[in-house]
Amino acid sequence: MIGVADAANFVALGLHALQHRGQEAGGIVTHDPEHGFSSARRFGLVRDNFTSQKIMETLPGAIGIGHVRYSTAGSKGATQIRDVQPFFGEFAMGGAAIAHNGNIVNADELRRELIERGSIFQSSSDSECIIHLMARSLQRNIPERMKDALRRVEGAFSVVAMTRTKLIGVRDPLGVRPLVLGRVGDGWALSSETCALDIIGAEFVREIEPGEMVVISPENGVESFKPFEPRRGRFCIFEHVYFSRPDSILGGRSVYDTRRQIGVELAREAPVEADLVCPVPDSGTPAAIGYSQESGIPYAMGIIRNQYMGRTFIEPTEQIRNMGVRLKLNVNRALIKGKRVILVDDSVVRGTTSRKIKEMILDAGAAEVHFRIASPPTAWPCFYGVDTPEREKLLAATMSEEEMRSHLGVASLRFITLDGLYRAVGVAEGRDPKTPRYCDACFSGDYPVKPTDMMARGFELAEPAE
Amino acid sequence: MIGVADAANFVALGLHALQHRGQEAGGIVTHDPEHGFSSARRFGLVRDNFTSQKIMETLPGAIGIGHVRYSTAGSKGATQIRDVQPFFGEFAMGGAAIAHNGNIVNADELRRELIERGSIFQSSSDSECIIHLMARSLQRNIPERMKDALRRVEGAFSVVAMTRTKLIGVRDPLGVRPLVLGRVGDGWALSSETCALDIIGAEFVREIEPGEMVVISPENGVESFKPFEPRRGRFCIFEHVYFSRPDSILGGRSVYDTRRQIGVELAREAPVEADLVCPVPDSGTPAAIGYSQESGIPYAMGIIRNQYMGRTFIEPTEQIRNMGVRLKLNVNRALIKGKRVILVDDSVVRGTTSRKIKEMILDAGAAEVHFRIASPPTAWPCFYGVDTPEREKLLAATMSEEEMRSHLGVASLRFITLDGLYRAVGVAEGRDPKTPRYCDACFSGDYPVKPTDMMARGFELAEPAE
Amino acid sequence: MIGVADAANFVALGLHALQHRGQEAGGIVTHDPEHGFSSARRFGLVRDNFTSQKIMETLPGAIGIGHVRYSTAGSKGATQIRDVQPFFGEFAMGGAAIAHNGNIVNADELRRELIERGSIFQSSSDSECIIHLMARSLQRNIPERMKDALRRVEGAFSVVAMTRTKLIGVRDPLGVRPLVLGRVGDGWALSSETCALDIIGAEFVREIEPGEMVVISPENGVESFKPFEPRRGRFCIFEHVYFSRPDSILGGRSVYDTRRQIGVELAREAPVEADLVCPVPDSGTPAAIGYSQESGIPYAMGIIRNQYMGRTFIEPTEQIRNMGVRLKLNVNRALIKGKRVILVDDSVVRGTTSRKIKEMILDAGAAEVHFRIASPPTAWPCFYGVDTPEREKLLAATMSEEEMRSHLGVASLRFITLDGLYRAVGVAEGRDPKTPRYCDACFSGDYPVKPTDMMARGFELAEPAE
Amino acid sequence: MIGVADAANFVALGLHALQHRGQEAGGIVTHDPEHGFSSARRFGLVRDNFTSQKIMETLPGAIGIGHVRYSTAGSKGATQIRDVQPFFGEFAMGGAAIAHNGNIVNADELRRELIERGSIFQSSSDSECIIHLMARSLQRNIPERMKDALRRVEGAFSVVAMTRTKLIGVRDPLGVRPLVLGRVGDGWALSSETCALDIIGAEFVREIEPGEMVVISPENGVESFKPFEPRRGRFCIFEHVYFSRPDSILGGRSVYDTRRQIGVELAREAPVEADLVCPVPDSGTPAAIGYSQESGIPYAMGIIRNQYMGRTFIEPTEQIRNMGVRLKLNVNRALIKGKRVILVDDSVVRGTTSRKIKEMILDAGAAEVHFRIASPPTAWPCFYGVDTPEREKLLAATMSEEEMRSHLGVASLRFITLDGLYRAVGVAEGRDPKTPRYCDACFSGDYPVKPTDMMARGFELAEPAE
Repeated sequence: MIGVADAANFVALGLHALQHRGQEAGGIVTHDPEHGFSSARRFGLVRDNFTSQKIMETLPGAIGIGHVRYSTAGSKGATQIRDVQPFFGEFAMGGAAIAHNGNIVNADELRRELIERGSIFQSSSDSECIIHLMARSLQRNIPERMKDALRRVEGAFSVVAMTRTKLIGVRDPLGVRPLVLGRVGDGWALSSETCALDIIGAEFVREIEPGEMVVISPENGVESFKPFEPRRGRFCIFEHVYFSRPDSILGGRSVYDTRRQIGVELAREAPVEADLVCPVPDSGTPAAIGYSQESGIPYAMGIIRNQYMGRTFIEPTEQIRNMGVRLKLNVNRALIKGKRVILVDDSVVRGTTSRKIKEMILDAGAAEVHFRIASPPTAWPCFYGVDTPEREKLLAATMSEEEMRSHLGVASLRFITLDGLYRAVGVAEGRDPKTPRYCDACFSGDYPVKPTDMMARGFELAEPAE
Repeated sequence: MIGVADAANFVALGLHALQHRGQEAGGIVTHDPEHGFSSARRFGLVRDNFTSQKIMETLPGAIGIGHVRYSTAGSKGATQIRDVQPFFGEFAMGGAAIAHNGNIVNADELRRELIERGSIFQSSSDSECIIHLMARSLQRNIPERMKDALRRVEGAFSVVAMTRTKLIGVRDPLGVRPLVLGRVGDGWALSSETCALDIIGAEFVREIEPGEMVVISPENGVESFKPFEPRRGRFCIFEHVYFSRPDSILGGRSVYDTRRQIGVELAREAPVEADLVCPVPDSGTPAAIGYSQESGIPYAMGIIRNQYMGRTFIEPTEQIRNMGVRLKLNVNRALIKGKRVILVDDSVVRGTTSRKIKEMILDAGAAEVHFRIASPPTAWPCFYGVDTPEREKLLAATMSEEEMRSHLGVASLRFITLDGLYRAVGVAEGRDPKTPRYCDACFSGDYPVKPTDMMARGFELAEPAE
Repeated sequence: MIGVADAANFVALGLHALQHRGQEAGGIVTHDPEHGFSSARRFGLVRDNFTSQKIMETLPGAIGIGHVRYSTAGSKGATQIRDVQPFFGEFAMGGAAIAHNGNIVNADELRRELIERGSIFQSSSDSECIIHLMARSLQRNIPERMKDALRRVEGAFSVVAMTRTKLIGVRDPLGVRPLVLGRVGDGWALSSETCALDIIGAEFVREIEPGEMVVISPENGVESFKPFEPRRGRFCIFEHVYFSRPDSILGGRSVYDTRRQIGVELAREAPVEADLVCPVPDSGTPAAIGYSQESGIPYAMGIIRNQYMGRTFIEPTEQIRNMGVRLKLNVNRALIKGKRVILVDDSVVRGTTSRKIKEMILDAGAAEVHFRIASPPTAWPCFYGVDTPEREKLLAATMSEEEMRSHLGVASLRFITLDGLYRAVGVAEGRDPKTPRYCDACFSGDYPVKPTDMMARGFELAEPAE
Repeated sequence: MIGVADAANFVALGLHALQHRGQEAGGIVTHDPEHGFSSARRFGLVRDNFTSQKIMETLPGAIGIGHVRYSTAGSKGATQIRDVQPFFGEFAMGGAAIAHNGNIVNADELRRELIERGSIFQSSSDSECIIHLMARSLQRNIPERMKDALRRVEGAFSVVAMTRTKLIGVRDPLGVRPLVLGRVGDGWALSSETCALDIIGAEFVREIEPGEMVVISPENGVESFKPFEPRRGRFCIFEHVYFSRPDSILGGRSVYDTRRQIGVELAREAPVEADLVCPVPDSGTPAAIGYSQESGIPYAMGIIRNQYMGRTFIEPTEQIRNMGVRLKLNVNRALIKGKRVILVDDSVVRGTTSRKIKEMILDAGAAEVHFRIASPPTAWPCFYGVDTPEREKLLAATMSEEEMRSHLGVASLRFITLDGLYRAVGVAEGRDPKTPRYCDACFSGDYPVKPTDMMARGFELAEPAE
């Protein structure tokens, strides 16, 4: 955020809108000429921290950036407050703060090299490499140092940075993670999603392009650079399926509408006779609406979500611990009883939740349960910033679709095909395996950037044939 | 809860399921022979308090009751922890704890009398009268003292109480507030709604009847008494419209399905040409589904709710404070643009939120906005336990339907009729004004119990003609 | 405190000065015409609670009282916040708050009677009986109700109370516990000790007399009443020895000087050849100074107290737990080595600390250790408000002086005699066993008020012969 | 601490004993093979943090170091948790943590150079330079890197460091700050003072010498190195006067006894007729005892310190704020009245407290007040780790002794002479101005290490003549 009074307020609101991208912790850095750089980092939700007058007063200035943390690679043990971004570094020409969305696949190697040269890391976060690379760059200003640093970084990165006078945004050459530009009054905003622009009343200007760096200042407005070798973009298709908020706009279309369209495609690909189409709330809701509209089978809220559920409910006894998902979800027993139910969910990862939900539905007296999944089988881990379990823990990595159906114990189980998914996101001809338009590694095993560190730790890529 | 190991766990889970009935504070009392009565009362959500091993260990025993507080009558200033139920009293024959759902309309009078006789009140809660009346009863056991006390109480009350060995439940003679009985293993549960039975895996046995008292003990099971003059029941119709959870069962039917049916009736009573039917989330969702199904106009999530919104976000600047509902809701701009939108909400109370939502929708480029409200105009305050503003602040108390439409600035505004609402809850012939089956005072001004204290403070009943 | 702006500030300062009388918790009640009665009660030290602008702003008014809690009789388990005084009651003629210093010896009996009549106790504190007795009195104003109530109470009590317009102070007929009156500007203060008058800059006017009640208002100043049968006073001699602060004035003399004089008497009664007189800090310091001055043996700080020691240091391992007093005290090894040391302490209760201190001194290389104790052997528990262990745990209840010497393992052990103590507090002729001037039950077993409740629980008085 | 089970317990106890050297914050780092390095840093007292099982369990290992922070140079604004030592760095050959007691006088210059080379500072602490210098050293092991780093550092430093297997201690060439070695069981301890050895039951082995580095491991025991050019030591004389705890041993003698001896010298140099010798508690106590013993004037506790005073008491009103020291100290009015009082304090820095104490004493009715100060006039700031105000704020920098006496408004004021102080610490011939045995810059202005950074900021040394 740059060019507005009390930028920290705007940053806090934007982070609140992006809370779904990370709930563990959040941080904000601001700068104003009188107080220099100010910083606040806290565990927990934005609304529980960056709210009180008391904290916000410690963050003065017309320029600021922030970050919400979603634990991905990095910390083996518990996250410590020093792992929370933005990271700050004082350079000879002044300070800079950076916030990184994504994941660096050669971080082990970079860290080793930097330590050998005498850098001292303060966090367990891979993203800290970027600020050390910048500190060691021979370039004379911060945007140039940032280019220098990011050319050494492999992986997925949408980075937002700030100096005393400039706001900087960069997307990696493939544009795996999103980054958008907005305008509010005389100020400018950078954000992962458009829903953060909406909350601050900013107008959505455009997406930052893959491989683009923008340097924004009140004097010069938005200057665009292309510091990397040009490559064809590979945006993360999982942002459409799951990660982005349904009210954000990706590729010119509402994410909600894309998800509804996935439901439509799924109804075409995998129809079944039934009485009700019920979403697994809230993630399956848009696809269930689409499925119902395409199939003509009535949509119904067969499962109700407890809106007061947080992550802190600790079940005290064994007896209760086994209730599992019941704390979060309850079946609408009177509605479900005796019905053939199509359950629509966004994905099956480990399969444990799906299994429990199926049991709840059958306990409540449903006649049949049919699962319809709004994404292809998740068979490969993501190394670009989405937190997925190791390959062995992914149900689809070890079972065929029929084995999964039997494991989940449902009457039928169908996933949308990769081609169906591409059609739903607007690629009418489906996926071109030679030049796919998206990063779909979690479904296909086709990783557009080689996961160097993970391979060094023993991860094996799919056979080329696959 | 009685007759289960670690009753406090069951009570906590049940309160969590009932959190929508009160978010300000919660309390649990238990008893076991070794430690006697134990109590914990906390501000905030159940999941943030009654969770840690540390607190739950302080609540041993096979019998327990709890309460979640929703500030109604009583405290003028800030609630203090001593206002949080259950209330406890030590009597000559042993202690008892009570939790009261509802509101006492002659509490001022009772309190004055009790103080004159030398009782010392510890809270500002009207419900404390009950325990003092019990302390002063001449009867020799607690259930008899409770009958004695409740015969002096006017208003709406579903009361749950416990002694060292018994669980007691009572509904007032009109049965205004709900109370249900469940069975889990060898134990028994009393709860305001069936969703609390579901979460603990209890089987729904039956509703406690209006004017009934049940006394439950492991030895004698459920004993039923009728301590009051028999009257025809007047259950709160607003529980169907708004207060109860959609997955609870009232009168044999899922609340969700009743609300969907309200949408169906509303589509019949107030059709309009449009492109989309959108709920105001989450309260308008079931009625919007029903409206869409009856009208054939597609259902769509035009407004998205931020699931990380709590009540604690303090907007720090004037500029941001005015954003109001944007912190909680965002419009799906790409979806709404250029469309004629039917917005379905559950009620219009003050009208301020409705107005802001309409503005958001129009800002996002909607062509027309039509409001459809799943309840009749709320023109009278509730004195029986639902927190409503004073009469002057109710939009429908001062404006006609057309004035409200103009005030909200929408193309059309329609409320379901009182007859339509009765039909939706299953009274095929609509409302019989002579012997209405429900308490519908908030819509009709027809108060089944005279609000004594409020009338002493100047409240005027409607003319009989109305 | 009455008659000053922001009385709560004065009360907080006074409680801070009286912190040695109770560290567990503190409370303040104030009244002003606009806000009525306000109250704040907190666990922990005054300085950690009644300090912030935020809390003090909640306590407006020109009249207020407070209390610091020292757990005595009453709570069997952990103290709860509702046990913290002042206690408040709303009566038909307005509210009153009371704070009680001392202990009621017939509380069991009073509580039983009050519960039978329908009073509901909120705390486990015996002092709550007083406010219930007041609530049930037939008298028409609060001072009269208070007289009525206190005539039923047996034991030791200095009570401070407030109504909307009056400050009230009462001492029991024997005047066991202290209570003093001070004047600051146009206002009046009541306090247990004069050190609380000093801190608020108040002038010490006089002690409230045994059996006296004062009712203070801005209009009428100090009115004095004598509601009880006149009796000869028996002030607690232990206040001189241990309980009061050394800078307070009791009976016209500084407590410090009395304690120094005890040291002088002790040196006369129990001389010994040695190199150094060392106090056990800080309680033995004044007597050690007196002993040194009378004996001519140099005074030295052989034991140093860690001034950062609180009660919260939890030793984490067994190994360290055994270090015991070392966390609080350290020996000045270089000073003590090879010396014959006289250790002066105020009292020996259980003997455990004395034993550890002796070991520390010998470990550090002292040649001999001589204990001199500035009070007679503590052989009887106090039932009048000083927290002492049960009789069986008092070392002097089960051992002769020589047995104690041998148990502590020191070269010599001498206590001041009861006559010597009386001389030090100014009774030149020593103690008259027929009409002793002080309550010295902890030393003599001569209880001036029969401990009714404790006797019902099995406590046996000394034989009259003793 | 090295070579003991659960080293963190020992470190915590040691820090507790050293709490007088820094109360703002504390930190502990430990290492064990399984968990690697563990760290905890907290604001506040040791006893309030490093106590709970919960925190201590996070600090496993047989080797550990700690630090208590006393804000000296460095942070201009509020201290942040990242400013709290020990500092940790991961090097190619493994990690190291360091804790620094003292002050670096060329830190500005070092920091500038390190930033230019690409180091990123995380704190505002000068001490962080040491770990960055170590990170950039070309040496192949940590002790060598430490020598390398410390040779670039100017100023006063006693540094304790740890690697995975070694404990390291270093004193600067002048030995300005203390550092002692102890032995407990099979383990070794390093500490600023012997009182920290006492609390863990360790035996005092010897002082680390000026310019010495010891490297301690279970295998090789204590290895000694001399990495610096040999210089004649200049130990801080203020440690004797004020900084060290009275029960510590410095130069073979108890600090208490040295201070008592200062009082003796002061009585010889500056006698006066009076009735009582009273210490300003607690800092003036030992010197007052010495003064009394030498002069024969009785010692008395004329001023009583409130032992519950912390630094957190916030006086809420202007009226009360002016009471100042009264919250902490109270005069023993009954004792002081009409007496000629000699007040003994350890030092006069700004003079504000001395003035208030004098007023309290006169208010209480003292006939005369004579100040005797157990150190020479403090006329120069310390740049070697004692927190003193800027020169302009030191009373003795701007006033003669007679001007100070008049300013304080006392009958007489005398400081001990520098020669007298040297005699008291054991240099019978007094101070040799050519080769003084101590650093006495705060009294003499003779700085043994040029304060480079401060001179760059404008500080002027005394004329050589002085």
